[in-house]
Amino acid sequence: MNIRFYNAKILLTKNTDKGHAFEIIQGELWVKGNRIVYIGDGRDLDHVYEAPFFDEKQPIVWEREIDAGGNVLMPGFKNAHTHSAMTFLRSYADDLPLQEWLHKQVFPREAKLMPQDIYHLCKLAILEYLTSGITANFDMYLRPVEIAEASADCGFRTVQTSGLNNFTSSLELMEEDYYRVNEISELTGFLLGFHAEYTTDRKIMEGVAELSHKLKSPVWLHTSETKGEVEECKKRYGMTPTQLTESMGMYEYGGGGYHCIYFEDRDFEIFKKRNLFAVTNPSSNLKLASGIAPINRFLKEGISVAIGTDGPASNNCLDMFREMFLVSGLAKVTEGDAAVVPAEEVLYMATAAGAHAMNLPECDCLAKGKLADLIMIDLNQPNMQPENDFVKNIVYSGSKSNVALTMVNGRILYEKGKFFIGTKPEEIYARANEIIGRMK
Amino acid sequence: MNIRFYNAKILLTKNTDKGHAFEIIQGELWVKGNRIVYIGDGRDLDHVYEAPFFDEKQPIVWEREIDAGGNVLMPGFKNAHTHSAMTFLRSYADDLPLQEWLHKQVFPREAKLMPQDIYHLCKLAILEYLTSGITANFDMYLRPVEIAEASADCGFRTVQTSGLNNFTSSLELMEEDYYRVNEISELTGFLLGFHAEYTTDRKIMEGVAELSHKLKSPVWLHTSETKGEVEECKKRYGMTPTQLTESMGMYEYGGGGYHCIYFEDRDFEIFKKRNLFAVTNPSSNLKLASGIAPINRFLKEGISVAIGTDGPASNNCLDMFREMFLVSGLAKVTEGDAAVVPAEEVLYMATAAGAHAMNLPECDCLAKGKLADLIMIDLNQPNMQPENDFVKNIVYSGSKSNVALTMVNGRILYEKGKFFIGTKPEEIYARANEIIGRMK
Repeated sequence: MNIRFYNAKILLTKNTDKGHAFEIIQGELWVKGNRIVYIGDGRDLDHVYEAPFFDEKQPIVWEREIDAGGNVLMPGFKNAHTHSAMTFLRSYADDLPLQEWLHKQVFPREAKLMPQDIYHLCKLAILEYLTSGITANFDMYLRPVEIAEASADCGFRTVQTSGLNNFTSSLELMEEDYYRVNEISELTGFLLGFHAEYTTDRKIMEGVAELSHKLKSPVWLHTSETKGEVEECKKRYGMTPTQLTESMGMYEYGGGGYHCIYFEDRDFEIFKKRNLFAVTNPSSNLKLASGIAPINRFLKEGISVAIGTDGPASNNCLDMFREMFLVSGLAKVTEGDAAVVPAEEVLYMATAAGAHAMNLPECDCLAKGKLADLIMIDLNQPNMQPENDFVKNIVYSGSKSNVALTMVNGRILYEKGKFFIGTKPEEIYARANEIIGRMK
Repeated sequence: MNIRFYNAKILLTKNTDKGHAFEIIQGELWVKGNRIVYIGDGRDLDHVYEAPFFDEKQPIVWEREIDAGGNVLMPGFKNAHTHSAMTFLRSYADDLPLQEWLHKQVFPREAKLMPQDIYHLCKLAILEYLTSGITANFDMYLRPVEIAEASADCGFRTVQTSGLNNFTSSLELMEEDYYRVNEISELTGFLLGFHAEYTTDRKIMEGVAELSHKLKSPVWLHTSETKGEVEECKKRYGMTPTQLTESMGMYEYGGGGYHCIYFEDRDFEIFKKRNLFAVTNPSSNLKLASGIAPINRFLKEGISVAIGTDGPASNNCLDMFREMFLVSGLAKVTEGDAAVVPAEEVLYMATAAGAHAMNLPECDCLAKGKLADLIMIDLNQPNMQPENDFVKNIVYSGSKSNVALTMVNGRILYEKGKFFIGTKPEEIYARANEIIGRMK
């Protein structure tokens, strides 16, 4: 589709001496196929075909021209850690001690999932991502092929890593998934990874490290999510999960960790040296009573932080607005300083840093030549008024209700409360209820 | 208005041996004037005029009959602590150290507010309350009469307490406000209170206690919000703010405190003995780096907890969904136990306990004879699916985007994204921008 947005405020991403910043310009943003081809004041419309920013020397035929009504166009949010298909367990087993939740509620029901269930349950998550302005997710779950197919069929962008552990998948299967998922669609990618140290034997972890050298892939894992996990790893190996995996040569091609709560000085050093990403999941960490990640320290060390919702069985919602507020608010209260982890850094985490973590450098910001993964934020709502500061407003006051439009890869998948993903939401809801109904 | 809701799920509030609980029944809810006159299966429609629940022996003429489409009707949320008119400072001065925020940014601009500014700025907050399913607010700010007029003019319900301190208002003015605001409208109320111990001299506090005996009014104040506040109070008086105010005879007729973070054993005892309410404001407490309130301890002691957003200068949004998630999540992480402060208790705090704190016993739940302050929650959205557990879904996954309708005192003030408060939102937004624009 060729789509022209006019009368828009466009959020541009900047680097400054003091950190990340954003600038808003008034004007137009043009999408041709799946790319942004122009951002500017749009005054030279008569000459567009000669402008240097077009591949072909012919005027663009607009399929849609959208009056943004003074609203903001900004890069879509990147959900840098999730387990999408766990939608079936949303609000199914809350307010339980962690081990009871995991062993009595989650695992027995996951074991009953059929491959096609995962396909449909991912679509439910994608609907919710779209309502929250999320344009790509970084998934880890059973059945990577079905996950990728769900995403591709919706027109949504999904990068995956493996949930490999002693009980699920294998090194051989992961390598197969790597080739297959990376080829299913331009919208789907796969990076190496495994579930976590505490679920995965040394031999498998060593195999992951070896495979990462062969495939030149980053490696991802749940790491240092709970105090007990780190203590047990140190008992087993005399090292934290980060030190252990580093000692195995896991990070030759980068990667990172999900959660990253209980870090020692040496762990920070490794993350810095290897340019690893710390993905934080604050809602899940609160609700499972895991802890609060040291975000201010990560920023001070120059380590990139991205943000994820984690899965809907723990969170329970897939909402980047909640996560953004928490990243800043929890850092402020734990540091006892209202000035740390400002809104601009949080918005950078939720957009650009997430894209970089997920190996999606072409989706990190709005600029000519980038992929058209963007959202429109409705300012004509009370929580966005007065218009004192858009970035503070979006991080501290924003909500799903402000997301007027979500575009992935140049296609509008969500607009004014309606979905355009090729399946009716009601069918997806019915499937999800049927799946969990079967397990009760 | 006489309004019949049919095809609805209706959320009923229960007390059980194990704590608060909710039950959902399928059926109809009828509103006549400003009251709920019927909840049931609606099958005896031919005989309604003879039913014992009507004052007059004649059939109801419905002005509207609303197909709820299987969605949930539930009591509106009660925002039990806020400073509505501070909307003008939303996102104006964030990410600053607390004292700089207060003294360099907030106070100088508050000093420039005109009485009419407060009237308009309150309306902006009311718009946002409606989008979040909030049907009543407990306000504390300058100019109680203008606040009450804004609320009454919108058809919204507002209870106020005084922000009396050494610099603002006086005992005489507070007594005047008490009589005046309680008479402006059936929608507006006023209870005695003062800003906080650290801004108010002993003599004024003693005057408040005396006035509370004369007027038989509860007393409200900010209390134990920061560690420094409690330490300084103990230096000055050898007692915490709660102990000090109790020693002055402040709580003969009840009341409570906002924030209630740094509590000693004796403070809990006083709250329990006097049946005081602890109003928690978790977002604000995070963002201003104040601390985390001991909610689990309050519940264990049998002390009632209500929930407030605090003002939009600190929070920055006025959203009960964010607050509800945080009340539970922060309790879980600080106690290291995912089972504490379950969703049912949180929903009770956000609805019934809030109403009780605000002296609105007729607005606490959906039942025949209660005032019609209610909301409709749209279940046909991805974050409410599958329908495993409505209460967990609403507390852990709910969002403003689920609020399909907000009714206050029998009038629909918000429905499907549109406001019906007698003023256009655009006019309110323009006013708010003009007011802060004047101060820059």
